[in-house]
Amino acid sequence: MPDVRDLIRAKRDRRTHRPEELRALIAAYARGEVPDYQMSAWLMAAYLNGMDAAETDALTAALLHSGRVFDWSDLGRPSADKHSTGGVGDKVSLILAPLVAACGVLVPMVSGRGLGHTGGTLDKLESIPGFRTQLPPEALRAQLDAVGVVMVGQGPDLAPADGLLYALRDVTSTVEFEPFIVSSIVSKKVAEGAQAVAYDVKCGSGAFMKTRDAAVQLARRLVDTTRSLGREAAALVTDMSQPLGEAVGNALEVRESIEVLLGRGPADVRDLTLDLAALMLERAGAEREPAAARQRARHALESGAAWLRFLAMVEAQGGDRGSVERPDGLPRAPVRASVKAGRAGRVTAIDTFGLGELVVAIGGGRRAKGDTVDPRVGLLVRARLGDAVRAGDVLAEIHLAADDPAAVARAAGCFTIGDQAVPAPALVIERVG
Amino acid sequence: MPDVRDLIRAKRDRRTHRPEELRALIAAYARGEVPDYQMSAWLMAAYLNGMDAAETDALTAALLHSGRVFDWSDLGRPSADKHSTGGVGDKVSLILAPLVAACGVLVPMVSGRGLGHTGGTLDKLESIPGFRTQLPPEALRAQLDAVGVVMVGQGPDLAPADGLLYALRDVTSTVEFEPFIVSSIVSKKVAEGAQAVAYDVKCGSGAFMKTRDAAVQLARRLVDTTRSLGREAAALVTDMSQPLGEAVGNALEVRESIEVLLGRGPADVRDLTLDLAALMLERAGAEREPAAARQRARHALESGAAWLRFLAMVEAQGGDRGSVERPDGLPRAPVRASVKAGRAGRVTAIDTFGLGELVVAIGGGRRAKGDTVDPRVGLLVRARLGDAVRAGDVLAEIHLAADDPAAVARAAGCFTIGDQAVPAPALVIERVG
Repeated sequence: MPDVRDLIRAKRDRRTHRPEELRALIAAYARGEVPDYQMSAWLMAAYLNGMDAAETDALTAALLHSGRVFDWSDLGRPSADKHSTGGVGDKVSLILAPLVAACGVLVPMVSGRGLGHTGGTLDKLESIPGFRTQLPPEALRAQLDAVGVVMVGQGPDLAPADGLLYALRDVTSTVEFEPFIVSSIVSKKVAEGAQAVAYDVKCGSGAFMKTRDAAVQLARRLVDTTRSLGREAAALVTDMSQPLGEAVGNALEVRESIEVLLGRGPADVRDLTLDLAALMLERAGAEREPAAARQRARHALESGAAWLRFLAMVEAQGGDRGSVERPDGLPRAPVRASVKAGRAGRVTAIDTFGLGELVVAIGGGRRAKGDTVDPRVGLLVRARLGDAVRAGDVLAEIHLAADDPAAVARAAGCFTIGDQAVPAPALVIERVG
Repeated sequence: MPDVRDLIRAKRDRRTHRPEELRALIAAYARGEVPDYQMSAWLMAAYLNGMDAAETDALTAALLHSGRVFDWSDLGRPSADKHSTGGVGDKVSLILAPLVAACGVLVPMVSGRGLGHTGGTLDKLESIPGFRTQLPPEALRAQLDAVGVVMVGQGPDLAPADGLLYALRDVTSTVEFEPFIVSSIVSKKVAEGAQAVAYDVKCGSGAFMKTRDAAVQLARRLVDTTRSLGREAAALVTDMSQPLGEAVGNALEVRESIEVLLGRGPADVRDLTLDLAALMLERAGAEREPAAARQRARHALESGAAWLRFLAMVEAQGGDRGSVERPDGLPRAPVRASVKAGRAGRVTAIDTFGLGELVVAIGGGRRAKGDTVDPRVGLLVRARLGDAVRAGDVLAEIHLAADDPAAVARAAGCFTIGDQAVPAPALVIERVG
């Protein structure tokens, strides 16, 4: 291990780290031999002076190898996973994971909790009574073999250095730096053991990446870094200038996901799920041609195979099957109110970030780790960009734990009604890799 | 107190801090409310993105007010102090402090220990048997009133935030940054309560500042920041391309200082001491004209008043008067060896930094805090830049705890003997302020 001060000085002076230097730094940090105050000086130096692609790859490998790396190759089937950079109403994982499993590709999916304006897959799953998101490794393997899909939270042994580093970045204002974002995402995804990873990089008012250029660049780095670790990868840059589907909020999103699994539900959720499923099948080597991959995914959805796989997963993870099979089986908020248009015109903009924050504010998300989440609350967003509306039309329905006129007004404020015609945005903006 | 993450983000994004932000940050850090890992991220952001003069002044004020600020105005006399940025053989403080006191100006001098290649005034003083460098504040005040001069180490209540910050900078590679250097020096000097501060900014092979431009800029900032806190200041940029005087090493430098106080000793030590004394007298308002100030300083030296004041100070601080009055009263090394010229020619360069490091290596300084120092060892450097030498001439005399031929060879290697004539460098390069 070189003197940490020398590594800090090197990055301070804009030098490029050798891979073995980053490996030694992260390994020593994970062992507790490098104190936080040295690591945070290094983080800031890297943030300000940059890291090149080779350094990003090396950092990712170092984070990956700080913990356990799963390997499912002995199960004898291809495997794939998906990661989204986070949006509002993004419930795709709930449909996608069982769907891809129904196509014969293993999906060992590790998800996170919601933080800030974006929801988290774990929170959504936990609105199903009894659903367990922490499984011991042996149970995880057994379920993956038997059901083909498992959806769990990150165990403490998966890229533990990333967890430590993320907590430090959060309190030292070094979160929003592409090489750190990429290494954090990719190290965890690769540790889960899938052979192929599909990335859904969100772009627009409800996403971390506001511009197409930034999103495409992030997508490129995610794909390249994943490949540098010997895994297949591809990415879709997709629109987040309005919520995905109608439902925003945990139980509401599970209900909408069930609708899609049953062949109904919003078209955008269904379409994006099929696009990502096709990408996973193709990258995992289960299908060679994109068109054939999408056909196979659509068949798994329309035949009900994806829905049956979802039920099998819910049962295997202790969830109450009845609560997802009955229309009213999931928790419901006691108060509902309509969010109405104040004037006639066109929906010219939706503050999607604002809607996500509103759901947090009414109890559906967390501001800080450890906050509890009310699974019942949220929004059903009816208005889409470009829609013509009359004064008094319902833009959204808000589900609340108690009367809250301010929340209703705040929701209405997230919709801009203007006079110009606005084209509906394309859902998939670009494919990378 | 604003959220520390916002302050880190502001500096990360190249914004300028308001004075109250820096005050709040440093105050909270000194109270232990801002953890080291956030402070170090801020340190690195400031290091890389810079701080302007107003921020430097505000940081200095914040460090100053983290602790006690002495005030001697009730003693009814002007006061002055001197700070050197550190050189090799720089024993000026030992002569200067009693000399200025003998001119009727109070000198409340707080000094540091040697670290790295430069010596420290405290280590030199402690080679006088019995000399105490830690005094309680009441004793310090009483001695200053009675003797007019006191030379002590920094107490824990003087700019404590600077001590914490310095330790953190040391382990996070954020030491060599002018605004941090300036705020650290000035906050401590102002806390000592002197009305005027003379800075001796060293420049050359034995100094931290290698170029004249860098030294002049640092001198300018030291003077301006000191004035921003309501104190008078001026600086001399002085040559450190060869040791000051002959003696390098603790007891050897005390002995040489006594020689100068007795009207003998090397001319460069005497001249620089008188220049700095004149600057202090002038800035403290004791003399209006530079020429008169220098005349008064010279008289204090030549009359023996400075020497008597030195003796009074040694006695007041518990030192053994006999050990400084007798030629052999101070500790002496058992082994002495001559460092000889290997060829005839001119002394064209002296690796002054190397000589300083050699003295550390033979036991006369410390590599890390807490190392013990051998007061006896060191060098008497006879050769000066530009001197003509014959092969076998003595360039220096080395004083050792035990035989050490490698040290003798290493000393010889610090002198470059060439053929071209080299002018003797001017001692004072520039006055600032």
